[in-house]
Amino acid sequence: MSNEVYIIGTGQTKFGEFFDLNIGDLASEAVSKAIKNAGIGKNEIRTLFIGSTVSNSLSQSSIGGICTRSCSLSSNAYRIESGNASGAAAFHHAFLSIKSGLYDVVVVLGIDKLSDYVQNGTIEKILASSIDYQWEYEMGATLTGLYSFLTQAHMEKYGTTLEQLAYIPTKNHQNGVLNPKAQYRYAIPIEKFLNAKRIADPIGRFDIATPCDGAAAIILASERYIENKKTHSYKVKILSSSVGSDTLALQHREKLTELKATKIAANDAYHKAKLTASDINLAEVHDSHPIGEILAIEDLGLVPKGEGGKASVEGLTALNGKITVNPSGGLKARGDPFGATGIAQLIEIVEQIRGNAGKRQVNDVQYGLTQNVMGTGVMSYVSILGRGEN
Amino acid sequence: MSNEVYIIGTGQTKFGEFFDLNIGDLASEAVSKAIKNAGIGKNEIRTLFIGSTVSNSLSQSSIGGICTRSCSLSSNAYRIESGNASGAAAFHHAFLSIKSGLYDVVVVLGIDKLSDYVQNGTIEKILASSIDYQWEYEMGATLTGLYSFLTQAHMEKYGTTLEQLAYIPTKNHQNGVLNPKAQYRYAIPIEKFLNAKRIADPIGRFDIATPCDGAAAIILASERYIENKKTHSYKVKILSSSVGSDTLALQHREKLTELKATKIAANDAYHKAKLTASDINLAEVHDSHPIGEILAIEDLGLVPKGEGGKASVEGLTALNGKITVNPSGGLKARGDPFGATGIAQLIEIVEQIRGNAGKRQVNDVQYGLTQNVMGTGVMSYVSILGRGEN
Repeated sequence: MSNEVYIIGTGQTKFGEFFDLNIGDLASEAVSKAIKNAGIGKNEIRTLFIGSTVSNSLSQSSIGGICTRSCSLSSNAYRIESGNASGAAAFHHAFLSIKSGLYDVVVVLGIDKLSDYVQNGTIEKILASSIDYQWEYEMGATLTGLYSFLTQAHMEKYGTTLEQLAYIPTKNHQNGVLNPKAQYRYAIPIEKFLNAKRIADPIGRFDIATPCDGAAAIILASERYIENKKTHSYKVKILSSSVGSDTLALQHREKLTELKATKIAANDAYHKAKLTASDINLAEVHDSHPIGEILAIEDLGLVPKGEGGKASVEGLTALNGKITVNPSGGLKARGDPFGATGIAQLIEIVEQIRGNAGKRQVNDVQYGLTQNVMGTGVMSYVSILGRGEN
Repeated sequence: MSNEVYIIGTGQTKFGEFFDLNIGDLASEAVSKAIKNAGIGKNEIRTLFIGSTVSNSLSQSSIGGICTRSCSLSSNAYRIESGNASGAAAFHHAFLSIKSGLYDVVVVLGIDKLSDYVQNGTIEKILASSIDYQWEYEMGATLTGLYSFLTQAHMEKYGTTLEQLAYIPTKNHQNGVLNPKAQYRYAIPIEKFLNAKRIADPIGRFDIATPCDGAAAIILASERYIENKKTHSYKVKILSSSVGSDTLALQHREKLTELKATKIAANDAYHKAKLTASDINLAEVHDSHPIGEILAIEDLGLVPKGEGGKASVEGLTALNGKITVNPSGGLKARGDPFGATGIAQLIEIVEQIRGNAGKRQVNDVQYGLTQNVMGTGVMSYVSILGRGEN
């Protein structure tokens, strides 16, 4: 297990509403761009790992076959589903498949196509498929309803305010303006969040990330492969990829004021990367709801517990603040095509480490961290990337 | 990659219609039995790999959380979906996770609950989700319709007859009588298959395996773990677990008279197990349609190409024939809860190697092989098990 794993190429579609494109079209664009970006041949790819949350709803369970066909790959393919964290789960398995010496080059594709469900009104049910159907959804809970409990608990225990919460999507929309791949490239004034109708109090109607269409792909390669090739102008090293778990239903958890799965994954990820939270000044986290980002930065150890709201107001997590959080715009402004989200987070860190992030470039990036969550936190994936030269 | 991987426990629900049980109930029964059978503690389990084809349709994408909750496990969990071969795909990843030294003890759970869809008439659409939605289903094809093309092509090229085809389900129902876990424990006279109404000529209405409810679980452990424990009365060694791929749509294939993915997987599996087809006298293969078993035994090299139909008539593949094929009853008589099928195949081989197969015990079992197919053969998984003493 001593061989290192590198990211050698990335490719992504724009995220948004693409009613005229199918899953195969989106897959093909992202994978082709990633292969071109890596400068490798299609025949070098041994396996395609696909993170996709909802492909069954598209009447297609054999999404592996769809994607190999549309991408003209002759490789094997696996679909891995871990609710809203399917992209990170697929990445985790792809990383392990190289780390263990099984493969030298694999593709990880994150993909979902959700705008049809937003339009026909079934998206709430799809979102609810990531919570506990029996213990939560059938009792009347929705994903956002459960996030409102997490928000209330944090407000009560730590005094987090509506204004602090509203700073999160405000900041992420400001960042999204600078990201050409983002679904929403416009800023929204904080008053709009504060004055919006409450959907599930204290969560307002503009606070929630939008399920949309998109695909994102990255190429992973082994140290051995990189050394033989010597042709890649850059490479980004995967320092760690970790996972933690908690209960699916909120009612079975010890605390509502922390994401235990994220804490477990983060501790493991820091340990394996031989880093501490104080080494991190760049993170892409799961801000599907504002409290998600607050819990993430606290439970990742980037800010003290209970100070996630304050940190946002003080600008600590703004672009080129002390710790830049969600420079891509996050799920909120980039859009959230479930399976693609975890891969898009990783691509943002890769672009930042390469110095290719344009107007949203963070200064002095040595490392970057991603956090992708399933449901309300039943599983959490944390990965840390670093410069290839390290 | 030198460490060996063993199966140390198995557990399975009966397969059939269980309208009063949910996914969690089925998962809990299979996993609890497997853990008890292995004689290990729940806390030793690091990861749960779940093969499930249709869980999204059950309004529950986070099936990992459902299963850990219902099985009272604190482990991580992953769902892997590869159409009808989801069980074998999950097994393949679980095997690799130990082989690579990452874990010492994992559970693989195959599970699906399909009777509701059989009853409400949506099962055809679910079956069709494993073929190419765009190039096949939307053009009017069904899974069985495509299998009728494979059947016709074989009849035309090799002179395979309707009578030869009818021997397959006849034999498998005879075997199913002897399997307490099978959905259908009764023999069906060959005339019933021959005289049945044709559903998709030449496939008759009784020829097709029935989607049903069920769960099957196996516990895998590393050599290192086994050596430390020394408490297991038996163990079955995984000699190889291989995968091959082909195109998703039939129209893109080179030949309709063979399963290329199965040939690729079988060659790799024999090579890794240091065996040839002539060493195998026991196999569990994917007989969702009669031609499936004929193609399987030919493309696995168990009988010469084109002689699969004749072999069945001559009794070569009957219980304690030269090569016993589907002693469990196969998908046809055991029933086919998609994700659980690949695991049930492996459990049958384990029971046969242990000498625990009761009235369907095969004599002189040294090795056993499983073959599980996605769609009409886009991916095929072949595994070879052997005695732990080897």
